[in-house]
Amino acid sequence: MSTIADVAARAGVSKATASRALTGRGYVSEETRQRVADAARDLSYVAHSSATSLATGRTQTVGVVMPPVDRWFFAELLAGIQESLFALDYDLSLYGVPEGSRTRERLFEHVLPRRRFDGIIAVGIQPSARELERLQRAERALVSVGPYSEGSSAVSIDDTDAARIATEHLIELGHEDIAFVGGSTDAGELSFGDARRLDGYLVALQAAGLAHRARVVGATPTMPGGYTAAAGLLGDRRHRPTAIVGVCDEAAIGAVIAARRLGIAVPTELSVVGIDDHEHAEMFALTTIGQSPREQGHEAVRLLTQRMSRPDDPLEHVAAASALVVRSSTAPRR
Amino acid sequence: MSTIADVAARAGVSKATASRALTGRGYVSEETRQRVADAARDLSYVAHSSATSLATGRTQTVGVVMPPVDRWFFAELLAGIQESLFALDYDLSLYGVPEGSRTRERLFEHVLPRRRFDGIIAVGIQPSARELERLQRAERALVSVGPYSEGSSAVSIDDTDAARIATEHLIELGHEDIAFVGGSTDAGELSFGDARRLDGYLVALQAAGLAHRARVVGATPTMPGGYTAAAGLLGDRRHRPTAIVGVCDEAAIGAVIAARRLGIAVPTELSVVGIDDHEHAEMFALTTIGQSPREQGHEAVRLLTQRMSRPDDPLEHVAAASALVVRSSTAPRR
Repeated sequence: MSTIADVAARAGVSKATASRALTGRGYVSEETRQRVADAARDLSYVAHSSATSLATGRTQTVGVVMPPVDRWFFAELLAGIQESLFALDYDLSLYGVPEGSRTRERLFEHVLPRRRFDGIIAVGIQPSARELERLQRAERALVSVGPYSEGSSAVSIDDTDAARIATEHLIELGHEDIAFVGGSTDAGELSFGDARRLDGYLVALQAAGLAHRARVVGATPTMPGGYTAAAGLLGDRRHRPTAIVGVCDEAAIGAVIAARRLGIAVPTELSVVGIDDHEHAEMFALTTIGQSPREQGHEAVRLLTQRMSRPDDPLEHVAAASALVVRSSTAPRR
Repeated sequence: MSTIADVAARAGVSKATASRALTGRGYVSEETRQRVADAARDLSYVAHSSATSLATGRTQTVGVVMPPVDRWFFAELLAGIQESLFALDYDLSLYGVPEGSRTRERLFEHVLPRRRFDGIIAVGIQPSARELERLQRAERALVSVGPYSEGSSAVSIDDTDAARIATEHLIELGHEDIAFVGGSTDAGELSFGDARRLDGYLVALQAAGLAHRARVVGATPTMPGGYTAAAGLLGDRRHRPTAIVGVCDEAAIGAVIAARRLGIAVPTELSVVGIDDHEHAEMFALTTIGQSPREQGHEAVRLLTQRMSRPDDPLEHVAAASALVVRSSTAPRR
């Protein structure tokens, strides 16, 4: 039977690298991951691990619970989770969760408890205490993507920090009248992450003695949402802010488009900063706080495999990387 | 044990409607589908169907093979497939396929043949003859979304027709210099559907005696792809077209953004038409050919359940609806 040493030799990498690639623990490049996976396949190393799984009653399946994949962040995250699970020869069972619906209750109360899989990755769904308890009672490994789950291991950027740094960037450029586009709307509450981003904006204003200038405009966190909110905000010449923080890049890009429509020059008359480094951010020359949901997907799988093999280890919260990316949608206040 | 009549009575619908909702065959509103699914659950009707499945060796799992879900079309389609499978109490195993990679070979040769599920929905992946043969040899129901698969039941719009109608709309407005943005690029071949759209554009020009005016500009089918291609095309004042057909709305929206940046007024100086009715089309007032990938997802599941219960029926190709949606990105030629 092949060993990890055989796989490493065939792939031309060290044993440690082969192990990282196969377990998802620690960084390897996608190319290396693929080469090791191919070597493992050629040597039936994966088949061996499947046989072991059969003996241990494992299903080689991971359940992924996430909102509809209609936002860039979730699509990228899912791609990252897929890549890592595929390299490990795990299947991915996907469960969509529309917020606040009865479908959601059915999912947590009836569907997930009955299904067979080795672990669950819960993404951006803010499980209630009862839902979390349901997931945990199944005694399967659980990892969240998002900062909200005290009861599970998790990976996420620090949303408060991201918005604080975005806002401070504008304050350093001399802006004092800075609006936040992406507050709660009639239609819906803020997600947990978006609420933290709003906090970060307020924290930065407070620290600069600008708390009384806070202006939070409700908007769904989408391009049309940001467009509509910014069009309303910018339409009134007398109370026009000199800068906008978007709750996410989609909302910020919507604001840039609204400004152009109204003949307001970005960045000379209006600075706009977003959060995420969305795939369209570069096209709009958007200054933003970059993060990589795809790498967070890899990291979530790494955390999950760790919990599956060592379920009694303490919970782990991994802070994903984020950093200010300065493009040309922001400039000193005139 | 509960019968379909019990479920229908509890949900307050006819037996025929309850059957449609539970089998996915034929249209029912999402609200009705949910009510019937809830009634079925309350009466353990679903549990009964699962028990039947156990007896018949079925897995209650459907495999979905699709490219990374980073385009609106695939995200919407996946949402539709999820909705229908969830209502039928089926699990969804998701397999991503990056084009042209070795991962793809591993998927078709090693992973899919070993996995246990009742049927497969293949989306936008243009399986080769060998891959199709692999899928069919597993003797599981197979449905494609896309017009390319002779060897399986399929659902798709007529891409040729869609692009022809979009182009004819511009010709009727008096345009003669009409460019197509979204031809093949150095980096990649056109997808099967996009190649048909290019055909449709050429067919319309030929029918109008404008074949010699055809101008196909290479572009990846994304907003940045359309932006870059259109910026190059429109930058040359002397050879500027008066209208553009985008291979999809993303490319068309990229062209609108490029035009605005260059100070070219849409639609007075330049008409732009897209295909898809993407969620951002309305924000850009884009004239387009509308289609609903979400409904195509529902339809794919309906076709699949039909094939699972009657595997020897003839293959069925369902033409999904599409129609011209006129907004204000198109106008008569000046």
